[in-house]
Amino acid sequence: MRTSQEYHKRLYAMRPNLYIGGKKVGRDDPRIKPGINVMSVTFDMAQDADWEGLTTAKSSLTGKKINRFTHLPQNPHDLMQKQKMIRLLAQRVGGCIQRCMGMDAIIALSIATKEMDDKYGTEYHHRFMDYLKVYQERDLTAACAQTDMKGDRIKRPHEQKDPDAYVHVVEVRDDGIVVRGAKISITMASYADEIIVVPTRALREEDKDYAVAFTIPADWEGVHLITRPVSVRERKKIKCPFAEMGVSDSVVVFDNTFIPKEKVFMCKEWEFGRRLALLFADSHRHSYSGCKPAVSDILCGATALVAEANNIERVAHVRQKLSEFAGGAELSYAAGIASAIYGEKTSSGTFFPNAIYANVGRRLMGETIYHEFNILSEIAGGLSVTLPYEEDFNSEETKAWLDKYIMRNPKIPPEVAHRIWRLVENLSASGMAAWYEIAGVHGGGSPIMETIALNIDYDYESKKDIAKYLAGINKELDQSKLLKEEPAC
Amino acid sequence: MRTSQEYHKRLYAMRPNLYIGGKKVGRDDPRIKPGINVMSVTFDMAQDADWEGLTTAKSSLTGKKINRFTHLPQNPHDLMQKQKMIRLLAQRVGGCIQRCMGMDAIIALSIATKEMDDKYGTEYHHRFMDYLKVYQERDLTAACAQTDMKGDRIKRPHEQKDPDAYVHVVEVRDDGIVVRGAKISITMASYADEIIVVPTRALREEDKDYAVAFTIPADWEGVHLITRPVSVRERKKIKCPFAEMGVSDSVVVFDNTFIPKEKVFMCKEWEFGRRLALLFADSHRHSYSGCKPAVSDILCGATALVAEANNIERVAHVRQKLSEFAGGAELSYAAGIASAIYGEKTSSGTFFPNAIYANVGRRLMGETIYHEFNILSEIAGGLSVTLPYEEDFNSEETKAWLDKYIMRNPKIPPEVAHRIWRLVENLSASGMAAWYEIAGVHGGGSPIMETIALNIDYDYESKKDIAKYLAGINKELDQSKLLKEEPAC
Amino acid sequence: MRTSQEYHKRLYAMRPNLYIGGKKVGRDDPRIKPGINVMSVTFDMAQDADWEGLTTAKSSLTGKKINRFTHLPQNPHDLMQKQKMIRLLAQRVGGCIQRCMGMDAIIALSIATKEMDDKYGTEYHHRFMDYLKVYQERDLTAACAQTDMKGDRIKRPHEQKDPDAYVHVVEVRDDGIVVRGAKISITMASYADEIIVVPTRALREEDKDYAVAFTIPADWEGVHLITRPVSVRERKKIKCPFAEMGVSDSVVVFDNTFIPKEKVFMCKEWEFGRRLALLFADSHRHSYSGCKPAVSDILCGATALVAEANNIERVAHVRQKLSEFAGGAELSYAAGIASAIYGEKTSSGTFFPNAIYANVGRRLMGETIYHEFNILSEIAGGLSVTLPYEEDFNSEETKAWLDKYIMRNPKIPPEVAHRIWRLVENLSASGMAAWYEIAGVHGGGSPIMETIALNIDYDYESKKDIAKYLAGINKELDQSKLLKEEPAC
Amino acid sequence: MRTSQEYHKRLYAMRPNLYIGGKKVGRDDPRIKPGINVMSVTFDMAQDADWEGLTTAKSSLTGKKINRFTHLPQNPHDLMQKQKMIRLLAQRVGGCIQRCMGMDAIIALSIATKEMDDKYGTEYHHRFMDYLKVYQERDLTAACAQTDMKGDRIKRPHEQKDPDAYVHVVEVRDDGIVVRGAKISITMASYADEIIVVPTRALREEDKDYAVAFTIPADWEGVHLITRPVSVRERKKIKCPFAEMGVSDSVVVFDNTFIPKEKVFMCKEWEFGRRLALLFADSHRHSYSGCKPAVSDILCGATALVAEANNIERVAHVRQKLSEFAGGAELSYAAGIASAIYGEKTSSGTFFPNAIYANVGRRLMGETIYHEFNILSEIAGGLSVTLPYEEDFNSEETKAWLDKYIMRNPKIPPEVAHRIWRLVENLSASGMAAWYEIAGVHGGGSPIMETIALNIDYDYESKKDIAKYLAGINKELDQSKLLKEEPAC
Repeated sequence: MRTSQEYHKRLYAMRPNLYIGGKKVGRDDPRIKPGINVMSVTFDMAQDADWEGLTTAKSSLTGKKINRFTHLPQNPHDLMQKQKMIRLLAQRVGGCIQRCMGMDAIIALSIATKEMDDKYGTEYHHRFMDYLKVYQERDLTAACAQTDMKGDRIKRPHEQKDPDAYVHVVEVRDDGIVVRGAKISITMASYADEIIVVPTRALREEDKDYAVAFTIPADWEGVHLITRPVSVRERKKIKCPFAEMGVSDSVVVFDNTFIPKEKVFMCKEWEFGRRLALLFADSHRHSYSGCKPAVSDILCGATALVAEANNIERVAHVRQKLSEFAGGAELSYAAGIASAIYGEKTSSGTFFPNAIYANVGRRLMGETIYHEFNILSEIAGGLSVTLPYEEDFNSEETKAWLDKYIMRNPKIPPEVAHRIWRLVENLSASGMAAWYEIAGVHGGGSPIMETIALNIDYDYESKKDIAKYLAGINKELDQSKLLKEEPAC
Repeated sequence: MRTSQEYHKRLYAMRPNLYIGGKKVGRDDPRIKPGINVMSVTFDMAQDADWEGLTTAKSSLTGKKINRFTHLPQNPHDLMQKQKMIRLLAQRVGGCIQRCMGMDAIIALSIATKEMDDKYGTEYHHRFMDYLKVYQERDLTAACAQTDMKGDRIKRPHEQKDPDAYVHVVEVRDDGIVVRGAKISITMASYADEIIVVPTRALREEDKDYAVAFTIPADWEGVHLITRPVSVRERKKIKCPFAEMGVSDSVVVFDNTFIPKEKVFMCKEWEFGRRLALLFADSHRHSYSGCKPAVSDILCGATALVAEANNIERVAHVRQKLSEFAGGAELSYAAGIASAIYGEKTSSGTFFPNAIYANVGRRLMGETIYHEFNILSEIAGGLSVTLPYEEDFNSEETKAWLDKYIMRNPKIPPEVAHRIWRLVENLSASGMAAWYEIAGVHGGGSPIMETIALNIDYDYESKKDIAKYLAGINKELDQSKLLKEEPAC
Repeated sequence: MRTSQEYHKRLYAMRPNLYIGGKKVGRDDPRIKPGINVMSVTFDMAQDADWEGLTTAKSSLTGKKINRFTHLPQNPHDLMQKQKMIRLLAQRVGGCIQRCMGMDAIIALSIATKEMDDKYGTEYHHRFMDYLKVYQERDLTAACAQTDMKGDRIKRPHEQKDPDAYVHVVEVRDDGIVVRGAKISITMASYADEIIVVPTRALREEDKDYAVAFTIPADWEGVHLITRPVSVRERKKIKCPFAEMGVSDSVVVFDNTFIPKEKVFMCKEWEFGRRLALLFADSHRHSYSGCKPAVSDILCGATALVAEANNIERVAHVRQKLSEFAGGAELSYAAGIASAIYGEKTSSGTFFPNAIYANVGRRLMGETIYHEFNILSEIAGGLSVTLPYEEDFNSEETKAWLDKYIMRNPKIPPEVAHRIWRLVENLSASGMAAWYEIAGVHGGGSPIMETIALNIDYDYESKKDIAKYLAGINKELDQSKLLKEEPAC
Repeated sequence: MRTSQEYHKRLYAMRPNLYIGGKKVGRDDPRIKPGINVMSVTFDMAQDADWEGLTTAKSSLTGKKINRFTHLPQNPHDLMQKQKMIRLLAQRVGGCIQRCMGMDAIIALSIATKEMDDKYGTEYHHRFMDYLKVYQERDLTAACAQTDMKGDRIKRPHEQKDPDAYVHVVEVRDDGIVVRGAKISITMASYADEIIVVPTRALREEDKDYAVAFTIPADWEGVHLITRPVSVRERKKIKCPFAEMGVSDSVVVFDNTFIPKEKVFMCKEWEFGRRLALLFADSHRHSYSGCKPAVSDILCGATALVAEANNIERVAHVRQKLSEFAGGAELSYAAGIASAIYGEKTSSGTFFPNAIYANVGRRLMGETIYHEFNILSEIAGGLSVTLPYEEDFNSEETKAWLDKYIMRNPKIPPEVAHRIWRLVENLSASGMAAWYEIAGVHGGGSPIMETIALNIDYDYESKKDIAKYLAGINKELDQSKLLKEEPAC
């Protein structure tokens, strides 16, 4: 397993292919540092003996101890450990731990490559597992590039005016393929070792060029990352972990990019477009059952803290609102557990979470995230968005006034009160707030996508059978399908 | 295990102590038959070999096969089987299976009696386990009488103007105790073998006479059941299972009732009032994670069926609304699973569900039940509440007209269409609808009770610690408490 | 203006064409008495000098004082008086005053007949105004029969397998027309003087036979009313106004029914199908801004009263929940006022409410009605649905117990407490509760119908223009359309 | 009436007493320019003949034409014009027009000063009206400084550890008073001509020093403004109105500040603390019925526009969501109209909006604002928060790629598409988004404040009387209070 220093060293040595604010920059640009800081925590915590077995795992390929972010879950317990690890780390970085993208990509590819091989006699699975051994050995980080620009949203890929609206194969050579297109909203691409590409939607035969999956180093020739960093206003003196963390998203442009054969895991198997897209999405939705509870934990903690600073922590409506965070966090977490318990062993050996539970859990989070920010704001009051800048708290002319007036609860000294309000401002009244709100809606798919996924899998006919039985339309009620299957536990 | 016939036989032989509509009646009164029919299903399904191991269990006391409704869960799997069984049976009777009341009462008493004995050196646990052997052997049904009339809701028991506002001990004799008071809203009391009494709230030393728990046969001397039956309008020709089922609730009056010593399981141990009250409530809230999904299943099935009858099943907003049932049912069910997985082995050996998950799950259901009926009504249309009586569909003068006009989807013949609308009417436009709505809010405690229970147990301080760490107020973040405990699975 | 006695006399003399529960019955059948009682209040209150000018109006046709239920609004004040009158009477009968159906029908016909005449040179308007003079003079009550059975909901009238799925013209004669079909969910048809028929939806040329509007006496030859009465359980001793009131809905069958020419107000003018349907619907939605606030008032009052009976009226969460009724009632009422203020004078002289405000108001009510019942139930507790029957409160054997235990707030004597709980039971735990819930969703059109109506009229393009201006896409912002029109006030 | 140039000239000549980011700065600091731009629109639109009578009014003091922002409403029509003007201007500046703060302050003071004089024989009203003449004549802008820092939120002013937690009188001199304390979250203070101070809450006799109201120029000796500007990321090439607008909030420190007698409008009349606080708050809540609909209009327009850019504008769920904006905007607007219609003429002659309707309207907006941003984000997709910076769209290296891929709907050229996404980013994914969310909750008082205000005024007893009548507890129902009052219209 790598240390965060080793990760940094490799990163800073990469070819510059980042654009931020109109300029090409290196990976040492300070604007992506907050994202690198998040990534570093995933390495540091794997080195921490206290968390052995949670942040680490025993490789199903090699039997060696590996960072759990590179591990393929083998059983329900592995899925629950994945959830736990994500909640643990997300609490520590103040939200999105980001690295689960790569983890969910390798889980999805481990399964889909096996199923494609079984159907077509291709060699993707072996090829992918070879790659995965290296991935685990080198403890790599990967962004998963799934979302295409998509062009006209009501047209299929092959119907688009611009054929590049979705990433696609433009040439197949003996030694690899050439691809073109752009993936958007790709979190952590600018500080990942690798970029793993998977399809974004169901495909038809006419779309077969769009059925493509592969991996390449993030600084690969022909790959361009137009990057938007998000972080809170830099702290001058009142430093804190939350203000050190951040995220960057990129438009990843593939401009006739050559992908070597050994890195290609799907090429024109259009019938598996939807399968691979959903394998990634559903695995990622299960990951949300770890990180979203942590986001609720953070918002809950900040709300309780600012309620204490306002000295209203015991007021009935505040208690009631705090309990909403508890409900949101634990229902999401419970959905993740049920998803693990009712998961299934795939033909590849990878244990996959139950899609129904992953989707009902993720949807709940997407539906409530704005409301959770609303609660924080309601309890904090307007000050969270009108708080003078940090410098005014440090400046000779104004410090005495602000120190005097920032105190509400007399038990909380001015600097602590300032830190509380500053955290609340960072959390709820910054561009970062918007990032968490919008990622909370869309990351891994928005509520409407989960409704669609749910409606595909959910067995409404068996529910109608219950109604038909109760209405006397059918004389018998077959409940075997619904209830006989034993949970994996 | 008893058959339903044996249950009936014992029931009909009981002493008449029921009052319905101003008259004393026997247990053969047709108005309580729908409740007896529900109870019968719990016996019949335990005889069905297909469900062996689900509707039955191996007694932890005797090793014998018993009806699971009389079993003490020993591990997470037992709790998950309990959930499953309840969902199975609830689907079959069209909702509340009722008998889990007794199950949750014996679970609560098995734990609390052990803890009281450990603290006070009393003999309750042994006494209770002796009783439980008989209970399992005879396959008894029990109503759990918890809710007192309560008098002035902002006063404690001993502060009430009428000391009988809560059931209490009025005399302690060598051979037993004498109690007085009334328990209200006691489901199935009128067709149960036994009534088990437990306290309804936390108590102080001044309230110690109110700390009382015991069991007695439902027709015991000095016990009076003033009973309100609920069922749908009787069907004349278009019979169906749903219309055969129903429920009765009773005011259970104890009028200086003598309880023999061997049936007394708590007497003045006021410090355990809250513990025993919550043990029953939390266990019962876990039971809701089985039955409430079934209620959603039924409403979902009826909604999908009536949408089919309206031929709008594929319309986007209908699909969206159907998915809300899926979300409600499965989030509740997931909360039950997490509650099982994160449950704990008590000193008595009984495995108890995690209270946080039991409460967030139950609260969700209480918050959404009216909305679920709303969805059904919205899709069904006004006809559900304006449907002419069944007799008009059978009468010579009007049958032809109604048969002609009841058809909407041409694939569904008149009688089936009529059956669908009749079921929807029974479900959503009857006194039974109100019963499911109100029981859905209050059974096992209303949302505000779950919020209170949650706020007692939920670890808000650890959430504040996360915020303090992120704000730089604390330098370290201790996450051990939150995440180190392994789930029982 | 008639007295209620005169109304009764005429009613009881009508030809029996009612079917209830498989039998043909007269209008003296006790099951429709609760509906007749509601209707009577509309006559009695018009006789009450205190309400002169509110329950009465000056006829725009004759200048005479008439019952406002027969009046055509001439200005915003008339519309506001209509709202007020409905709220007044609805509070008094415990909910739906019913008679506004006829009022909204005459308003709609006064406008549509004029517009048809203007376009086609027909004579409907004159014909209708002649009829209206009689209507006002005789102070008639009318049910408006709009909703057809509709058959397959995704097919248009002329595409239906059964052409009678919608009421239609089967023959045109010199002296009138012959119609066939059935209207469903027709409130008060069984105790109205007249039945006024209007189309239920937009029509195409192929549907022209379905473009038909007319009026006939409710006991007309060839009209058959299959009626479902709804009321609460009859009181034996503890009488009260709420329990005297109720409602009946009918399936109105037209079986080759002849309609005399002078009663026909639309015949095949398919282009006005949608117009007339919406005129009635929008006018009726405006009426809801009077009655729905009254329903909220009643639920609010019952909730406050039962909170007092529980002695929890000052508890914070109770206060918060009570305020939700205030919000619901007054936002709805405000929508009605805005609808009046921004209404328009039509070519017929009738002043018509603004459709946008009528629809946003009505939709809000449809979305919150179940929630309002939920609040009542939450505050009342389970007792509302488990309250023993009235007879048990009167019976010698059980009266003492129930009188003793029904007391919670010591200031409220047993009979009053019993009356409170009985009202709450009647309101929330009866078939009547379901009627108010479902009528609250569907009466005048369900929320989805209002969304559709809204989306037709609402000027989204002007909102996009604002965004285009702010984005710098358009250099100018034309706000004239949006803001220049003066309110009628 | 002034021109915006005259406003600028006076502003730039003011004494520097602003602190931003640790430095004292002049009013020409570019960071407050966006706020000044908003203010300028209020002058420009009053010069526009098209809006004569809406943005202008005839002074009730002098009969001269004045800017409506300096006018005292005299009748319902004036209140409706105020609403309209605010909606008009708010659409134009992309949200908060800010200047209504001063307008609501003069309205409140015109009433409270009269009432104090009537009770105490003081001279405040005359003094205030003299000031108001100047205010109208010079067309001044004023921030209203109401919210104190408040210290410990559960203690009253005189109980605070730091007596300066609320602004208070520290000395009364013959020629004026000396005050100390700080007001927070004071919008537009840094670019207003005047600061008007009013109390923030109900006061008791012990709090009398906190009963103080006055006005002073914003650059007055002893007044210090620690200011936090909020605006979106500066545009380089793709300019647009929205990006030019912004807001600043200040902590306003009074450090033993002398206030001349003729500017003091309340001094120790503690019994009017609550009255004056609520007069301002309720008037401001009525103002929200103009601006909040405009915010919904903008969000609605942006959502419809981005839906068009995604080519999903006709999709059912998009249409449904758009209609939610229509509902929110028009219900709020309707509440404002009802508030005007049911307003009252005060003893001062100022016509004041009805508090019930002002509060139910404002509360609705506070409850839905986060949800409205949620809808925009849901329809826009993740791109709104991951959109590369403007410079990357302009840079030679990346322009071609971004122009190519930003196109979704082929009818919308790249620059327009970019402008749409940029507006959406500015609106929903910036610090400005948080400002609108949080101001949407708290401006004029948060939902819980409106619930409290509502519960004070709302006549729950009359609702209980309805229930008592319906239950047969009372034989009569007095409805006179509820329904007899005529609307002002």
